[in-house]
Order: sequence, then structure tokens, then C-alpha cells
Amino acid sequence: MTRADLIWSDVEKIRDNTPLIQNITNYVVMNNTANALLAMGASPAMVHSVDEVEDMVRFAASLVVNIGTLSRHWIDGMEKAMVKAKELGRPIVFDPVAVGTTQLRNEACETLIQKAAPAIIRGNGSEILALNKAASGGKGVDSLASAEDAIVAAQAISKEFGSVVVISGQTDFIIKGDQVAKVENGTPMMTRVTGMGCTATAICGAFAAINPDPFEAAINAMFVMGICGEMALAKSTGPGSFQVAFLDALYNLTQADIQDAL
Amino acid sequence: MTRADLIWSDVEKIRDNTPLIQNITNYVVMNNTANALLAMGASPAMVHSVDEVEDMVRFAASLVVNIGTLSRHWIDGMEKAMVKAKELGRPIVFDPVAVGTTQLRNEACETLIQKAAPAIIRGNGSEILALNKAASGGKGVDSLASAEDAIVAAQAISKEFGSVVVISGQTDFIIKGDQVAKVENGTPMMTRVTGMGCTATAICGAFAAINPDPFEAAINAMFVMGICGEMALAKSTGPGSFQVAFLDALYNLTQADIQDAL
Amino acid sequence: MTRADLIWSDVEKIRDNTPLIQNITNYVVMNNTANALLAMGASPAMVHSVDEVEDMVRFAASLVVNIGTLSRHWIDGMEKAMVKAKELGRPIVFDPVAVGTTQLRNEACETLIQKAAPAIIRGNGSEILALNKAASGGKGVDSLASAEDAIVAAQAISKEFGSVVVISGQTDFIIKGDQVAKVENGTPMMTRVTGMGCTATAICGAFAAINPDPFEAAINAMFVMGICGEMALAKSTGPGSFQVAFLDALYNLTQADIQDAL
Repeated sequence: MTRADLIWSDVEKIRDNTPLIQNITNYVVMNNTANALLAMGASPAMVHSVDEVEDMVRFAASLVVNIGTLSRHWIDGMEKAMVKAKELGRPIVFDPVAVGTTQLRNEACETLIQKAAPAIIRGNGSEILALNKAASGGKGVDSLASAEDAIVAAQAISKEFGSVVVISGQTDFIIKGDQVAKVENGTPMMTRVTGMGCTATAICGAFAAINPDPFEAAINAMFVMGICGEMALAKSTGPGSFQVAFLDALYNLTQADIQDAL
Repeated sequence: MTRADLIWSDVEKIRDNTPLIQNITNYVVMNNTANALLAMGASPAMVHSVDEVEDMVRFAASLVVNIGTLSRHWIDGMEKAMVKAKELGRPIVFDPVAVGTTQLRNEACETLIQKAAPAIIRGNGSEILALNKAASGGKGVDSLASAEDAIVAAQAISKEFGSVVVISGQTDFIIKGDQVAKVENGTPMMTRVTGMGCTATAICGAFAAINPDPFEAAINAMFVMGICGEMALAKSTGPGSFQVAFLDALYNLTQADIQDAL
Repeated sequence: MTRADLIWSDVEKIRDNTPLIQNITNYVVMNNTANALLAMGASPAMVHSVDEVEDMVRFAASLVVNIGTLSRHWIDGMEKAMVKAKELGRPIVFDPVAVGTTQLRNEACETLIQKAAPAIIRGNGSEILALNKAASGGKGVDSLASAEDAIVAAQAISKEFGSVVVISGQTDFIIKGDQVAKVENGTPMMTRVTGMGCTATAICGAFAAINPDPFEAAINAMFVMGICGEMALAKSTGPGSFQVAFLDALYNLTQADIQDAL
């Protein structure tokens, strides 16, 4: 099977199975994330409270955790949900938003991924560098000198936690141990819409729910993000219309669209 | 008066009176809910804190409570607001999102509707079944076998609490005691946008604010949802553009649009 | 330089410098606010927790605080952030949403602006009147009789706290001591979209980040809001499409657009 066939097969599985994706995410992007999952054919649950996350994980095919608008009582819910997901064998997709900028984020990330290693971790280059430093007790490098640095950090994280690590950027890198896959699709307009990274994380959650190989799931998810970004750009005149067109693209994506874009 | 006349009369009353609708709703849909109310001609207030909900209810023409992204400290605010609304004679519209999936939701629903019976309760079939079970101490049936089951549950809730119960679905059922009204308008695209059910609940709040008969208010609200859904579908190419067109339809809805759709 | 030149100069500075704007704002508008800042060329951070706001303020060029969906534990984060911003010399832009409607809001506003006087305060006429009353221990007038009343209240606030005060409305007034500037651009459609006032506050934050004179920053920000509102109205058919077109307008705004609109 070609990459286009593999992507399309996963898209069809999501549409046919409507997997329930539990999201504990930030206030800014909850609406976008839920809508992207619905447009993709998945079913979002947006439950976060420490008093009910375990109940909900039982119904979910995967768990997405995103620390965007963090506060202490949310970390407890994230931990409970992640530990329960691990126990039940549900893949966890983790987004360490802005790790490295505050102590709270560094501690939260270290705690969470130590307690329950994610199947997939997605961030930008700076976040992956900072996450490696936080996860290794502050021994990593601080600032992003090059894409190479982020890849080295991603490999270290992948080897320590067994996670697939996605570095989003102009080129996306998907890393598992020493394996590195690349996705060149996408458009800079995606950086002008809040939460497109968070949407990528959620979409990884949808693919991880139906593809048992997290490396393949992450590659296919990032291709779909990039292809739909290109489709949306062609139909939009700015970041407002881009968002609208992006959801329409996720919903309307065909096998031919994928083949044309690769 | 025909049904079209009754609907239009309510639409005009909302536009003329700009009723203040207080919403205690979930993080995912707050923006959509507020925008739908504004597009409809109502005025949304989105206050939730236990420290100020009572102050705000005094100004409101109706109260909408939605348990979408529940946590314990929000339940306290919901209870205070609902008890105050009852005391002041303001209609309450209640949305038991995902009741039946977690213990927290079942307990919250049971407590809230026991303390202050809503004028209108809106949910999908599974939620109405689960709400009936929760409200009756777990004696109801568990799983949704048919629309009939949900109607029986709705009638039981309606008789116990005096509430109008709306079951959303391909056909919407509006139930008061033994009376059952139906709305066949709408489109499956509404299920591909997050929070369209929550929007329906909020729109019920707008109609309940200006129509003293909650059964009539709920019927008219659900017709407007369905008609605007159909209008939006005609102008959209997917769930992104559908959302945009739906708000435009609420804003532009005319008497002729209603007549044509019935 | 003409006013059009001054506005354009600030727009270019925002686009060139991508200032980081820290927002502690309400659940309803977080997404809009972040997207408006991104469309404008700024970089939003949406951190609110008392446990990390101080860490984040260090990286920010300005701080926007908005009390829309207030609760007690958020007030602590707002206070910490504002005091830290003051200490570091970062301009604070404050939005006293719905002050005057609840005791919690009155107390929060009084405390916050006493502890750390904002560079810019933006509200509608009723809010500015109520803020003046709250800030002066309840001695101000209660209800809005005319635009004149709001201007008198704004002048009192401005003189007491040294803040620039923006009164949004059909005509926007920007007030510093006895100076009063006016912006006549805009459209009533902006009142039919939730959070356009909050967006105006955030955009003031972007201008305050790059223009050291808060009076000039507020004037230019309000012109950009009004001009982009007019541009969006021309491309939309209701409040749904207006929102989309507004973000596109912020992104595409040219020097010629500004010149044409003045």
C-alpha cells in the first residue's frame, strides 16, 4: 500500500467506527478540537473533572491530554485519566503546550508522562526541547538552535518513554526511537489560527483510536492536517475563512485529495 | 393562528424585547450559545460563579443550565441559580448533557431537578432515558431501544416534575404530560457541529423568556432550530461553513422562511 | 503624520515585532481574543492560574485582564499578574465586564485597579459609570443617562488612576484626563457578535505593547476595530459571516484601507 492508501484507510476507519475520543484540553481550543473531531468523523467527549474522568475513560477509544490553560486542580484530573487509560490499554496523546515557560508546566509534564507514558506526544520544536529537559530533571538544552536539536530531544524522549514524538513545524517530524518520518504538507496560515497545534494533537487521538501502531497513526494524522490545511488555504482569504474551510476540508476529504497532495 | 404565525410571533417578541438569558453552560459551547442568542435577538449573560449567580438571576428573564463540562464547584453555582430563579418565578431550561455516563452527572441531575424543577428539559433520547433513571433513583431502563422508550421516559419526567421535555433527534419530540408534539425540520449536519444541542437548549431559554407557556415555547424554539438548520445547509459545504450560515440564518429569519419550511 | 499614518505605523510595528500579549480573560471569548491577536500579527498567551501567571508575565509585552466569567480563584491570578506587570513596567489593559451587576464584580474591580492601575481601561458606558462608582466606594451615579455621564465618569477614573479610559459605543470615546478623542468608525453588527468588546480590549493590548503612549495606542486600536468592522460588514450577510470576515480584515488590513475609512 502507498502512503496515500494508508492514510485513506485510516480516514475511512474513523468515519466508519466513530471512535469516542476523550479530551482534557484547554479552554481556548475546546470548541475547535471538538469540531475538528466531529468533522473527521470521530466523536468527542470533553470531560475533565477529577470526579468523573475515570468513568468516562472506560467509554473512550483514546485519551487526549493538552495542558494549554493549566491549573492545579486540572492536573489531578489529567493524572487520574491518564493512569486509568494506561490501565485499560487506551492510547494517550499528550500535548505539552508551552512547557518550558513556567515551573507549573514543567512539573506537570514531568509528573504526567512519568505516571503514564503517552503513545504519542505532539509539540513544536521548543516544546519538545523543553519537555526533554523537564522529563530529564532539567539536564536538556534550553533554547532551540535548529530542527536537529528538536529531533535529538524527540529521540531521547521516545527512547525513554516508548512514545512516538511529533514535532510540528514547516516540516513535521514524526519520531519513534531512531525512525524519523517527515510531512511537508501544510501552510504557514495554520500558525495564524489559535489551536491548530491542539487540533493536530486531537486528530492524532482519532487516528490512534483506530490504528494500533502509534507511529503510523501519527504520520497519517499529520498528513491529513497538512493536506486539509492546503485545501483550506485554497478556499480562504484570511485566518477567519481559513478556519471555516479547514473544518469543511476535514469533512469532505476524499481519497483523490490525498493522492493529489502527496 | 397557524404554527407558522405562532413561531413568528415569538421570534418578533424576542427581537423586540431583547430578553436577558442567563447561561450556566459548558466551556465548549459558551461562545456558540452566546452568539446564537445574540443572532436571535436575545441578550446572553454567561455568569456561573456561586458568588454571583444569585445577583445575576435577578436581571434575567430566564435561566439556562447545561452540565456539559461539569465539576463539583460548578454544581453549587447551578443549584444556587436554579433555586433563586424558582423563587423569582423565572423559567429554567435544563440540559443534562451526557447524564448516564458518569456518577457525577447522575447525582448532579438528580439534585438539581429535585431542588428546582425546570420549565423545560432538553436532551437526546439516551440522555432523557438516563435522566429518568437518575431522577427515579435508578429504576428506569438503561439503554435506548427505540424512540418510544425515550417518549415514555420523557412522559414520566414530565409528570413527576411538571417540566416540558424535549427529545432531540431526527424527529424532535416535545412532551408535556401526555401531550406529544413533533418537529421534523432539521438536518443530520447539525450532529456534526459541536454544541448544536446546547444551542437548542439556549434557544429554548430565549423562547421561554417571552412565551409564558413552556410547551409552546419549546415547540417554537425547536422549529426555529430545525428551519435555520435547513437554511444553513443550503448555504454551506461542510460543518465549518454550516456553523457560520446557521448564525446568519437565526439573524435573518423571516416570516416567509418559516411559512416555506412548514 | 496624519492619524492614518499613525495607525498604520502601529499596525506595522505589531506585524514586525509579534509582541506576546498575556491574556487573563473569560471562557466565552478566549478563542476569539486569541484569534484576533494572531490575525493582527501579535502572539497571544492565555495563561491564568495563580501558580504560573507571574512566570508568564516576564515574557509578555503587555497584560490584558478581562473579568467576563469571573470566579474567586481567578481574581487571585489576575491580581498576581497585574502586580507583577506593574513591577516589570508592562502596560495593563483592563476590561471590567458587567461591573455594576454583581457585588463580586464591583469588589474585584475595586481591588484590582487599586493594586495595579491599568494603562488602559475599556468598557461600555454603563460599565465605566459603574466602575467609577465601585472605585470611589459607591459614590458615583448608578444609571447611564447620557454619553456625557460616561465621559465624566471616565475622566474621574482617568484622573484618579492615571489610566486612559475607552468608552465603546456607536461613537467610541478615548479619554485621558481632560483630553477626549473620538472614533466614529464601526457598525452596530459588532454588538450582535459575542466578545467584540473583549476583542477591542485585547487589540488595545497589542497596540499598548508597541506604542509607549497608551492614549495613542488606545486611539489607534479603536480605529482599527472600527475600520475592520466596516470592512467585515461589507463582506458578510449576518453575525456568523461577520465574525469570519472580521478576522480576515484584521489580517489583510492595508494602509489604503485605513486612509479610505478616515
